[in-house]
Amino acid sequence: MRKVCVVVASRANYGRSKSVLTAIKNHPDLELQLIVSASALLYRFGNAIEIIKKDGFIPDATVYMVIEGETPSTMAKSTGLAILELATLFENLKPDIVLTTADRYETMATAVAASYMNIPLAHTQGGEITGSIDESVRHAITKLAHIHFPATEKSRERLIKMGEEVDRIYLTGCPAIDIITDIDLSLDGVFERYGGVGARIHTDKQYIVVLQHPVTTEFGSAFDQINQTLQAVKELHIQTIWLWPNVDAGTDAVSKGLRMFREKYNPDYVHFYRNFSPEDYARIIYNCSCLVGNSSSAIREGSYLGIPSVNIGTRQHGRERGRNVIDVGHDSVEIKNAIETQIKHSRYERDILYGTGSAGKDIAEILAGCSITIQKKLSY
Amino acid sequence: MRKVCVVVASRANYGRSKSVLTAIKNHPDLELQLIVSASALLYRFGNAIEIIKKDGFIPDATVYMVIEGETPSTMAKSTGLAILELATLFENLKPDIVLTTADRYETMATAVAASYMNIPLAHTQGGEITGSIDESVRHAITKLAHIHFPATEKSRERLIKMGEEVDRIYLTGCPAIDIITDIDLSLDGVFERYGGVGARIHTDKQYIVVLQHPVTTEFGSAFDQINQTLQAVKELHIQTIWLWPNVDAGTDAVSKGLRMFREKYNPDYVHFYRNFSPEDYARIIYNCSCLVGNSSSAIREGSYLGIPSVNIGTRQHGRERGRNVIDVGHDSVEIKNAIETQIKHSRYERDILYGTGSAGKDIAEILAGCSITIQKKLSY
Amino acid sequence: MRKVCVVVASRANYGRSKSVLTAIKNHPDLELQLIVSASALLYRFGNAIEIIKKDGFIPDATVYMVIEGETPSTMAKSTGLAILELATLFENLKPDIVLTTADRYETMATAVAASYMNIPLAHTQGGEITGSIDESVRHAITKLAHIHFPATEKSRERLIKMGEEVDRIYLTGCPAIDIITDIDLSLDGVFERYGGVGARIHTDKQYIVVLQHPVTTEFGSAFDQINQTLQAVKELHIQTIWLWPNVDAGTDAVSKGLRMFREKYNPDYVHFYRNFSPEDYARIIYNCSCLVGNSSSAIREGSYLGIPSVNIGTRQHGRERGRNVIDVGHDSVEIKNAIETQIKHSRYERDILYGTGSAGKDIAEILAGCSITIQKKLSY
Amino acid sequence: MRKVCVVVASRANYGRSKSVLTAIKNHPDLELQLIVSASALLYRFGNAIEIIKKDGFIPDATVYMVIEGETPSTMAKSTGLAILELATLFENLKPDIVLTTADRYETMATAVAASYMNIPLAHTQGGEITGSIDESVRHAITKLAHIHFPATEKSRERLIKMGEEVDRIYLTGCPAIDIITDIDLSLDGVFERYGGVGARIHTDKQYIVVLQHPVTTEFGSAFDQINQTLQAVKELHIQTIWLWPNVDAGTDAVSKGLRMFREKYNPDYVHFYRNFSPEDYARIIYNCSCLVGNSSSAIREGSYLGIPSVNIGTRQHGRERGRNVIDVGHDSVEIKNAIETQIKHSRYERDILYGTGSAGKDIAEILAGCSITIQKKLSY
Repeated sequence: MRKVCVVVASRANYGRSKSVLTAIKNHPDLELQLIVSASALLYRFGNAIEIIKKDGFIPDATVYMVIEGETPSTMAKSTGLAILELATLFENLKPDIVLTTADRYETMATAVAASYMNIPLAHTQGGEITGSIDESVRHAITKLAHIHFPATEKSRERLIKMGEEVDRIYLTGCPAIDIITDIDLSLDGVFERYGGVGARIHTDKQYIVVLQHPVTTEFGSAFDQINQTLQAVKELHIQTIWLWPNVDAGTDAVSKGLRMFREKYNPDYVHFYRNFSPEDYARIIYNCSCLVGNSSSAIREGSYLGIPSVNIGTRQHGRERGRNVIDVGHDSVEIKNAIETQIKHSRYERDILYGTGSAGKDIAEILAGCSITIQKKLSY
Repeated sequence: MRKVCVVVASRANYGRSKSVLTAIKNHPDLELQLIVSASALLYRFGNAIEIIKKDGFIPDATVYMVIEGETPSTMAKSTGLAILELATLFENLKPDIVLTTADRYETMATAVAASYMNIPLAHTQGGEITGSIDESVRHAITKLAHIHFPATEKSRERLIKMGEEVDRIYLTGCPAIDIITDIDLSLDGVFERYGGVGARIHTDKQYIVVLQHPVTTEFGSAFDQINQTLQAVKELHIQTIWLWPNVDAGTDAVSKGLRMFREKYNPDYVHFYRNFSPEDYARIIYNCSCLVGNSSSAIREGSYLGIPSVNIGTRQHGRERGRNVIDVGHDSVEIKNAIETQIKHSRYERDILYGTGSAGKDIAEILAGCSITIQKKLSY
Repeated sequence: MRKVCVVVASRANYGRSKSVLTAIKNHPDLELQLIVSASALLYRFGNAIEIIKKDGFIPDATVYMVIEGETPSTMAKSTGLAILELATLFENLKPDIVLTTADRYETMATAVAASYMNIPLAHTQGGEITGSIDESVRHAITKLAHIHFPATEKSRERLIKMGEEVDRIYLTGCPAIDIITDIDLSLDGVFERYGGVGARIHTDKQYIVVLQHPVTTEFGSAFDQINQTLQAVKELHIQTIWLWPNVDAGTDAVSKGLRMFREKYNPDYVHFYRNFSPEDYARIIYNCSCLVGNSSSAIREGSYLGIPSVNIGTRQHGRERGRNVIDVGHDSVEIKNAIETQIKHSRYERDILYGTGSAGKDIAEILAGCSITIQKKLSY
Repeated sequence: MRKVCVVVASRANYGRSKSVLTAIKNHPDLELQLIVSASALLYRFGNAIEIIKKDGFIPDATVYMVIEGETPSTMAKSTGLAILELATLFENLKPDIVLTTADRYETMATAVAASYMNIPLAHTQGGEITGSIDESVRHAITKLAHIHFPATEKSRERLIKMGEEVDRIYLTGCPAIDIITDIDLSLDGVFERYGGVGARIHTDKQYIVVLQHPVTTEFGSAFDQINQTLQAVKELHIQTIWLWPNVDAGTDAVSKGLRMFREKYNPDYVHFYRNFSPEDYARIIYNCSCLVGNSSSAIREGSYLGIPSVNIGTRQHGRERGRNVIDVGHDSVEIKNAIETQIKHSRYERDILYGTGSAGKDIAEILAGCSITIQKKLSY
């Protein structure tokens, strides 16, 4: 029985791992070892741990590892701390495989710890192209990983070009898609399950959803960037659900912008939330008139659900996308116009670019059966 | 004036950075910021800091960062600790560029800290192929680095294939070659400068040099592997200079093997050393009858100096090499035979595969003048 | 010239060190080495670094060291991280003396790092009695410190009883008093200098000030405790200046209580601030009708300035105090009644229990001249 | 059922905890949680983990936490790292009580982590007086501890004087005595169980035992100090069992002295060992002609077993002792003379100063039944 250890480090992380966690937990030849850590434990970032527990997962360990400051140096330091902590946990849990997701600093930490410890590392969402430091980190993790589960065909091709051995690569689609393929997507009772602050949301009226993270490689601009988006939303004066950003260099500036906006305008059309369960998040974006910001969910889940989306700035630069996305710069007029265009458009057709919903099961099946060699080799 | 920060973390590191350090220090448009850390501060690993200071370098900071144990998990943890420490130092030194060398865990730590902190990262010796975890780590660092200084043409080509942008790559040769091109390579007075333990070395008689590191991805085998080499040397019964290994997962087992051998046989033909200055190391290997083990110096400096070398095991697997190297497995008979063959052969012809001695100056010149963008992009 | 290193880790820390920092900086035989760290660098906790710089101090180093979570375990972990970081800084700054203040976890970290490094440790505010973990930590630091600067005669006596050698103890009074003895205490222009959120403050009307920290040894009760105080203030419906709490186990719960209160009642009589300069803080509490909560400033500065104060709960339990304080439990009725009593009373007479304003200069003078032995000895 | 967590961090630590570990493990109302860490995991320091496992204890977690360098700053940093690691482990193990021993930096780390986490801390061997940093650290830990198990009546009295509440203090004697009261103390087969290096030990001839640790507050003198002892032993030229020192600031220098001595003189009368089981250590010192150095075992076990001992330097300065000890300075002549005097004297009478052998059971019994309040209070 192979022990597969998964480190869940944020609410986004959880949404993109949940179907895999479930499939591993239910697989007769696999044992799930779950570590919940970093911002997934923090109230300021939505306390994902509570949702994880409600979903029936019992963490084998929880570990605080975010060094506060939300600057480039605290991102680096949090990565270092995470490696220290995870190495001790891996030493004691002795997993046969470690599975990690995407491109955040917690992912980097997981990858470094596992690979130095000679634990086979499996990686989802490799081979994609974006902006920010995520771009570099994602490919660095690919270079450390022993098994790849890319989400798209083009990503798979890029992994091969980068020198990864073909028989280590499995095209499975993105696990984020799994949880939206077989649930009731209606909004009944969704908002009643969460607190948040601000205006009451009326589900019978149209609304937009905004989720904008700082771009760490443009650290000093985060405050200006969020203000352009706030200005656009202010002028639109439409019912808005706003999610607080991830913990990253610049988050402090984004949060400051949001708080100052609230304080100054006390807007009666915006409600701020810290977290939703992955399914409820899917319901909320499925039913919105436009998804605004720079979250990859506009591109991943967005393409499958056909959500009219406005993608702002460089964070998703180069990422493969469907027709549902309009790209704009950090300019309030551009943003406002694009949102208006998308609101008019209504839902797009389904695009299965990021998969059809079987990623989690496929990944678990492969992890249970594949042979793994520790020593890697550039293929050329 | 650009501030270039270099982290020197071990004796090997120093030999491969020294010409660059000198060139940066002497460049009118560059300011050198030197951090000396990790095993470069430790007596057990040769106390390179003393040689560094004797050479006229004054560290801006020293920092202990090796977590003892020499297991896979302490390698991971030392990497984490190094990131924590280096981030604080970078935060206070505010370098414009960070320069890092090759593929050790301290290099990984330097790369992670600098890249999350939006500090342009320059990397030497990228694109090479080997065994061990070094192989994965080297390519991961490439993915984080903003400027590449590969040592060979084939390495340059591999960097391009891996998706690095061409105009970020400068073929300079290996700085390790620089220090051996313009010095007197005679042995006069060399051994008098060092302590060590064991038999007195007679420079008028032939001798071999052994330097064998553990292969971290073959962690559990380090003790057996060193014993094969010890057995070969014992049977040869020839004057031998033996260097203690680097700090890595498995070093403890290698050291134990060496100590047990000394205790058991009290060999009157072996002298153990912890460190030499880079120049003295060059003199010693230049004049030896055979360089044995798995150090890359047999391949780099070895090819330029034409040193008859026996390379053992997988650590240098796939690395581009000249004719001076015979590859063998961890088998005492094979090792012994290969050493005898090489002793008979005498010096090989010069091969400039790894450069001609101008790498340090070229790197400094490029660092002073090149334009650097932080945001990276896969080239395909 | 003795190098004296001071670690400033929070806004409160700064207020209680400022006069010492100034006196060290101005002393001909002393060199100030200033490290600014922990919550003093964080926006959420008032960004004291900006006030420190405005006051003309240039930090020799800044270092992030707060692990987010505000739980008992993150307090412990932040202490560990702080020791790691401070040891590296001390190693490079090479201070002759380290000076530390009071009883917070950053103080503990400073004390542990300095004492293991054989650096003489000077400690202010030792020998006092309170509740919370501060009580234990304060005395533990006393046991590590080489020179003591207690604030009161009774504290001095306790240090002697605890076995500290008499000639290591200097009764200087509390440096917090220094900055309030020679400044204009009028409110002119004070509030214009700060942002904060909530109602506009009218300086011509009476107001109260509230500052309530979590009690770490009563971690689980922080939310309930702050709600009692909020309830009392709500019923009083008087102009209120509310300061956010320090970073400690439980702060998250206190902040949550404050935010929920704001969200629910949108009170037009409360203004929330994150930080004031030490002098402005003195001005604000000097002119208030009542100082409410569990800050030691109600007791220290409060006694000297005669501020009518209501002290809630166990945090200051046992601390020597003047007549200006009424002690109450965590009960909204009790709190409300006590505030009303104090508002009626108006200012109390000056009490010089905590000193007369020369502590900073006296401490600097002693540090410049005293002889120090590293090896300590219990006096009995 | 109370969960009692014990952190074993070194071979000495284990000897002084073993009877308590056994008693906790066997107590019907207690559950033992064992963490093995620091030098107890390191080959260089005797790999105590193997003996611990052989004795039937199964660690709940192992954790590497020694930062190599053996300087004052690495001691500080190892303390910081240990706090980080232990806090995560305590968070996940959720002990009801943490039990810690004596005065090493790992003990300090354990005490800081537990006390900030509101976990009741029990402490053995508090209230004793010595030299080195241990003196300060021991009393600091007392100030953090909630339950005290002093070894001697005078120590108990000192704890009370220091302000500890009387009903938190239980005089139990020292657990180190427990394991020597009921075993066969003959040497049969003892040396066959260990490796080590150097001369073969003949149990039919008389021998001395040397164990000398660096004094961290006299860091720079460690090399000179060990050389005085080596010189004395060289002149005595008597069969000698020499134990490598603990990991501490200065250990590197002590080890260097020992290695240089071996290299230079290749003494055929000295055998070097890294570790013995606690029982075998007792057997070896019980049968020696003189126990030399600065280990507290000469004083604790030494007084009970009546071992003629020579205590060198300040490390045990002030510690309560029986008649079996002669104190000398770091002077080879003084040391030699004292050893000769003790060899002539032969065994002393038993002194039960440090207990009669029931400490472990008594401590377990008290831990199972006592009531504990977290909030401490200076008693005066």
